[in-house]
Amino acid sequence: MNTQTPSGKPARGGGRAARRSARATALPDHLRPIRPGMEGGTYKPLSDEQVLRIHHAALDALETIGLADAPQSGVEYLTAAGCTLGEDGRIRFPRALVEDTLAMANRSVTLYSRDGKTDLDLSGNKVHYGTAGAAVSIVDVHGREYRDSTVQDLHDAARICDHLDNIHFVQRPMVCRDILDNREMDLNTIYAACSGTFKHVGTSFTDPSYVAPAVEMLHMIAGGEDKWRERPFVSNSNCFVVPPMKFATESCEVMEECIKAGMPVLLLSAGMAGATAPSTIAGAIVQAVAECLAGLVYVNAVKPGAPAIVGTWPFGLDLRTGAMTVGSGEQALLTAGCAQMHAFYDLPGGAAAGAADSKLPDMQAGWEQMCSAVMAGLSGLNMVYEAAGMHASLLGFCLESLILSDDLLGQAMRCVRGIEVSDETLALDQIADVCLNGPGHYLGTEQTLGRMQQDFVYPSLGDRTSPKEWVEIGKPDLIQKAIAKKEQILSQRAPARFDAELDMALRQAFNIHLPS
Amino acid sequence: MNTQTPSGKPARGGGRAARRSARATALPDHLRPIRPGMEGGTYKPLSDEQVLRIHHAALDALETIGLADAPQSGVEYLTAAGCTLGEDGRIRFPRALVEDTLAMANRSVTLYSRDGKTDLDLSGNKVHYGTAGAAVSIVDVHGREYRDSTVQDLHDAARICDHLDNIHFVQRPMVCRDILDNREMDLNTIYAACSGTFKHVGTSFTDPSYVAPAVEMLHMIAGGEDKWRERPFVSNSNCFVVPPMKFATESCEVMEECIKAGMPVLLLSAGMAGATAPSTIAGAIVQAVAECLAGLVYVNAVKPGAPAIVGTWPFGLDLRTGAMTVGSGEQALLTAGCAQMHAFYDLPGGAAAGAADSKLPDMQAGWEQMCSAVMAGLSGLNMVYEAAGMHASLLGFCLESLILSDDLLGQAMRCVRGIEVSDETLALDQIADVCLNGPGHYLGTEQTLGRMQQDFVYPSLGDRTSPKEWVEIGKPDLIQKAIAKKEQILSQRAPARFDAELDMALRQAFNIHLPS
Repeated sequence: MNTQTPSGKPARGGGRAARRSARATALPDHLRPIRPGMEGGTYKPLSDEQVLRIHHAALDALETIGLADAPQSGVEYLTAAGCTLGEDGRIRFPRALVEDTLAMANRSVTLYSRDGKTDLDLSGNKVHYGTAGAAVSIVDVHGREYRDSTVQDLHDAARICDHLDNIHFVQRPMVCRDILDNREMDLNTIYAACSGTFKHVGTSFTDPSYVAPAVEMLHMIAGGEDKWRERPFVSNSNCFVVPPMKFATESCEVMEECIKAGMPVLLLSAGMAGATAPSTIAGAIVQAVAECLAGLVYVNAVKPGAPAIVGTWPFGLDLRTGAMTVGSGEQALLTAGCAQMHAFYDLPGGAAAGAADSKLPDMQAGWEQMCSAVMAGLSGLNMVYEAAGMHASLLGFCLESLILSDDLLGQAMRCVRGIEVSDETLALDQIADVCLNGPGHYLGTEQTLGRMQQDFVYPSLGDRTSPKEWVEIGKPDLIQKAIAKKEQILSQRAPARFDAELDMALRQAFNIHLPS
Repeated sequence: MNTQTPSGKPARGGGRAARRSARATALPDHLRPIRPGMEGGTYKPLSDEQVLRIHHAALDALETIGLADAPQSGVEYLTAAGCTLGEDGRIRFPRALVEDTLAMANRSVTLYSRDGKTDLDLSGNKVHYGTAGAAVSIVDVHGREYRDSTVQDLHDAARICDHLDNIHFVQRPMVCRDILDNREMDLNTIYAACSGTFKHVGTSFTDPSYVAPAVEMLHMIAGGEDKWRERPFVSNSNCFVVPPMKFATESCEVMEECIKAGMPVLLLSAGMAGATAPSTIAGAIVQAVAECLAGLVYVNAVKPGAPAIVGTWPFGLDLRTGAMTVGSGEQALLTAGCAQMHAFYDLPGGAAAGAADSKLPDMQAGWEQMCSAVMAGLSGLNMVYEAAGMHASLLGFCLESLILSDDLLGQAMRCVRGIEVSDETLALDQIADVCLNGPGHYLGTEQTLGRMQQDFVYPSLGDRTSPKEWVEIGKPDLIQKAIAKKEQILSQRAPARFDAELDMALRQAFNIHLPS
């Protein structure tokens, strides 16, 4: 039995108070009901045979269709590795080359945090949820309005994520639209995120020439190039393809620079099913897998074993209007199917889930976000990107929604944890004891009290009061609670994620837009 | 290729209008993207070995612990079937008897609709969503208030369900609190539901003596006892146990009456994990399975092969407060685990999913409802009860939420439908054609247009506009849209689910509270 929990039964009548008090004691990490990196994989939308068919179709596509528009450097890397360059300018990938790459690719990728407390191990079916995206607006829930997102919004988002247990990484979710120069935007994106959180940060460079100064900044933050290379705490999201089946020339050049700088890369293929990818779920997955395997060959041609995440991110489309939809059931299936392909390859994988089409954090947003978020987790997706705060089919980011997603994702993670079956949890002895010798109920049994903290996830802002209690406490509004929590987090003296000396050095070396 | 869809490509610039117009044409049923009874089962929270351990623990519990409090008639049925009555008054079930019952139980249960259009086939992993419960309040979203639910509310709910494609059955979700006499309440419950919908109706009798007059009413509605017995369109929800491991004496007597009257019965075991069932998910499932198998032996002792649904409905508990919680991740796992046990037995099964703890249809309600609803569907639960409109941990029913659940459950059903893999859906030829010969995108390809109605589920009230369009249409509010739809449905001249002659006869024979 667990000795961390209150021993003995509470006095009659004092049960509720005793349970509340027991609950208030924080559990050590290893006893918490949910943790980053729990193993999913109980949900398998594809049969083993279907997985193989998708795999073979992707290999066929790479061999016979190939990818256009590789940069000159990429052509050289890829042909040296064994690809062919056709007269039509397309790079084609022999099956054996892809299979060799699959055999030797890096399977033990860790995405590091800055303080070592929230490192992400991307092996197996370990699941992590976090932000991502390139929203252009921030959602003002007070005024029900969308306005341009700024570097301050990004920094605020990073600070909020730093406070939320169920946000495991902070990939840039929105664009700093108040910084017009792209180079300054890229540098300030890293500054705004890393100064707000110790968690792993993701960014995305707009130009290969911006990588060098950014890496200089990262070396300063890390305390030297050696420390950076030992534990790179920022990864780069590379939209290295323009689906269908074309390399994104500049993004490939960015990718080469990142690999050389020791930065993990996300091979992001973001086709839209029905527009830039086939409209069928299976077809969109085939194309995404083919594109990402091409990227994997590319990465390993630049540097064998370089850390890369297979980013098959097909998105849904509303074919009535041609608009993107990320909150749909089709989206949830696209992502879960991709997760199963990552598991088949036993490679670190990521995709998008947990985003809403709804403009505001309303009931629609709740069901849209949970649908794909929980299915992604159950399917064992290593990196669930865009999993918090994302609205309007990725166009808007909402800080209140981000805060509420901590409850939503905590619940999804409880589902990922699943059902433990052991002699103790089967509880046959307990059932016999309660029915034959005991009080006829399980309230206050040692087993019940012993598990109330370890087994159960309690919402932070979600409301579970009875209608009567709810009236007594003034019918609290979910969004108002999220606003209050946001203000509470942002009004605190920011934890010094950069110490004063480092901050001064960075501000001297770079044009930092955030006020100090 | 599907010839039902628009042939040829739309003229340049007219694509969106053409697609919208194509969409407006309703599809014949067999081409619709989702249908009642789609097969789930891709999500398996338990391994095969874990399923067996639960099964054996349940058999052990039945053999060694047994159930107390059977009515005298039940003792006679059960001991005649091979059970033993202990000196402690508990009925114990030899393994061989349970196994024999499992072998001969009715596996081809159909829950009939009145018009034959929405019959529910409960074989395999076929999934159906519907209402259920015994809420005591109706949620007024306008005034953010809970008030006593009435027979008019129940009738309105039935009429609304009749309009919603993704609500497949109408089990009574709330109690008619304006009818104080229980007999009249039971009779009026059937009247209010059946006069509002042709879909299969579920009810729950409070006393065995009320079954006979209710069956008289059902014979009248059916047009004679033979017609009723041929297609019984009302089933009875029997809370036949008081967990842990006690028969509910009166409810068992109700059950016997229902079986004799040819009414399908739901064997409902509603333990609360941590109070009336073990706090562990596995333990709560063991107990629920044991109780329902006891019920199954009972049903088959009364009448071999009588139609029964295995209703393992364990509920979650918030152990901090001792209050019930149905919106949690633990709840979703309880229900999905039970569904897997039903599939193991290959028996018709039902459980609760899709209910919220939240008091109002807000973001929390959305994520809570989707979490368990989609997991129940993916696990292949035949009857997903309480799947629409349910708030405040089953205490409140909300008509606006019911309407919104049509979108929510449609999305869940799209996920249940899953990913089709075939040469056509793998789309390799299409990818080659688009990349090597075509326009470089899939918009407007024959394959895309041919599938835009068959493959995709479009929300009815859910919003997918861009932020710009959303502003242009006045920032529509989801709840206001649901209110408007409710008013539109209820303001229509009610479809005559009873013809005038039948209605008059019923009103002469029974004290009907609803105004005619």
